[in-house]
Amino acid sequence: MQPGIKVFAPASVGNAAVGFDVMGFALEQPGDEITVRFSDTPGLRITLISGAQGKLPYDPLKNTAGFAALKLLEHLGETGRGIEMELHKKMPIGSGLGSSAASAVAGVMAINELLKRPLEKKDLLPFALQGEYLASGGWHADNVAPSLMGGLVLIRDNETMDFHRLPMPRGIYATVIYPHVEVLTKDARSILSDAVPLKKFIQQSANMGSFIIGLYNSDISLIGRSLQDVIIEPQRARLIPHFYEVKEAVMKAGALGCSISGAGPSIFALSANSLIAEEVGEAMKRVYAQAKIEHDLYISPINQEGAIKC
Amino acid sequence: MQPGIKVFAPASVGNAAVGFDVMGFALEQPGDEITVRFSDTPGLRITLISGAQGKLPYDPLKNTAGFAALKLLEHLGETGRGIEMELHKKMPIGSGLGSSAASAVAGVMAINELLKRPLEKKDLLPFALQGEYLASGGWHADNVAPSLMGGLVLIRDNETMDFHRLPMPRGIYATVIYPHVEVLTKDARSILSDAVPLKKFIQQSANMGSFIIGLYNSDISLIGRSLQDVIIEPQRARLIPHFYEVKEAVMKAGALGCSISGAGPSIFALSANSLIAEEVGEAMKRVYAQAKIEHDLYISPINQEGAIKC
Repeated sequence: MQPGIKVFAPASVGNAAVGFDVMGFALEQPGDEITVRFSDTPGLRITLISGAQGKLPYDPLKNTAGFAALKLLEHLGETGRGIEMELHKKMPIGSGLGSSAASAVAGVMAINELLKRPLEKKDLLPFALQGEYLASGGWHADNVAPSLMGGLVLIRDNETMDFHRLPMPRGIYATVIYPHVEVLTKDARSILSDAVPLKKFIQQSANMGSFIIGLYNSDISLIGRSLQDVIIEPQRARLIPHFYEVKEAVMKAGALGCSISGAGPSIFALSANSLIAEEVGEAMKRVYAQAKIEHDLYISPINQEGAIKC
Repeated sequence: MQPGIKVFAPASVGNAAVGFDVMGFALEQPGDEITVRFSDTPGLRITLISGAQGKLPYDPLKNTAGFAALKLLEHLGETGRGIEMELHKKMPIGSGLGSSAASAVAGVMAINELLKRPLEKKDLLPFALQGEYLASGGWHADNVAPSLMGGLVLIRDNETMDFHRLPMPRGIYATVIYPHVEVLTKDARSILSDAVPLKKFIQQSANMGSFIIGLYNSDISLIGRSLQDVIIEPQRARLIPHFYEVKEAVMKAGALGCSISGAGPSIFALSANSLIAEEVGEAMKRVYAQAKIEHDLYISPINQEGAIKC
């Protein structure tokens, strides 16, 4: 058996409170690992999937990572190459943490590394997006772009892949809790009103603008004041048990802000440093422990590298 | 007669395409001039108004500049002081260029200078806002803040005066044309839908975010791509004769972006340098000359100082 190449693509927090559908940031953990190696059998084959409890298909055409990889191989004219892929799902599926994006990104990253980087990392984005599209039916880069490139990313336009990394003040930590309840992305979307009240739109615009100003100026207090989602969160909160209880506990523990990660049910908070992020994590856990809801907790700086070769 | 103190407060462009009700920038010209001096007669009196064609009242309680000045004098416990005020209106009223904001700012600036600066400039904002409120009935700082402080300003929250100056890449020029047609602010507001389609909200958010990123990174191309108002402009354009004709000509002339200034009817464009701004001005004028609509044209860098003592 040939030696393999292993890559890691991180989970990500879509929306980031003020950037519905246009912003997301990457975590250092959790994420997906993929190992690829050349084989004598032509074509791409998925030979092993771990950690997915049978939820993910082995057919590359139906698997997010496999499909993204195939799209890249097509582009490179390398579909005939014999390649074996192992997918190690090391993060929860359907958690609102960009699980399909991490798989898609890991898929293209692995192929690009195996073939000795025919493309620059940023140019892998459209192929990863095709994997994401297979999984979610949406052409949104707000998880794929941060998982690939790292950092907090704003996507101006998904069609033209016009995306931009934002600066992140040193020390800011994310705390994320995933309560084990099911929220389907399509349900989380279908409950959203098609219309936003003009006043809320104005308020959210101001918050998004000042959030970005806060990031550029390392103005932690402004970041905190700005991290308020007055449009999406009030509509989706009811899909997440004890959301407001968690949020209240988190803010009391000293977080800068707290909202829903992607379509939920995960809840994220940003804190000025790792100590507060730990306190915030304890506060989150207490709520779900008391409610007897299983949960996973992740505490992580903002991932600045995105997908990497391990 | 005592020697007077003269101040200037500039016109401003509210909304700036992507920041409806929360953003505005100051021009170097036009603007309002106010001269104040002590007098032996107690109380504030407006003794001269020029350039307003009889549209502005002499009663300080009913005059934007006078009312703002009175509110500041009240705060300072100086309402008994004899002060004469001359208001030289050097910009059009009802043009969408923040005429009332300029008057209110000049009023408070003049009093503060006359009394040897008891307050810092930024702390004059709430008093200027009260003058603006008298004129427009709205508690919005998107004209007052840039007229006072200069630059491009984002207001996160009008209640707490949480406002922030944005960087502006060197060389960027504004071109503004004021066609002599009447658009009442209240009409311009009443035609706006109370609701914003979710998709448009997402698009506008992305544009506002990337506009700010463009400003911080001096990314002129990104500034241009981002300067698109997909929400307010399409609703208000019909109030302004030949709006789309002007916009098309302006973009052909090489502007970065073009939209309505405040509630209109003025139209503004931003350009990468003064030469393009001149071309843009010619293009604007041609449209209104052909349509036989009187107009005023202003070409100006972004004013970085705001209100000044002359």
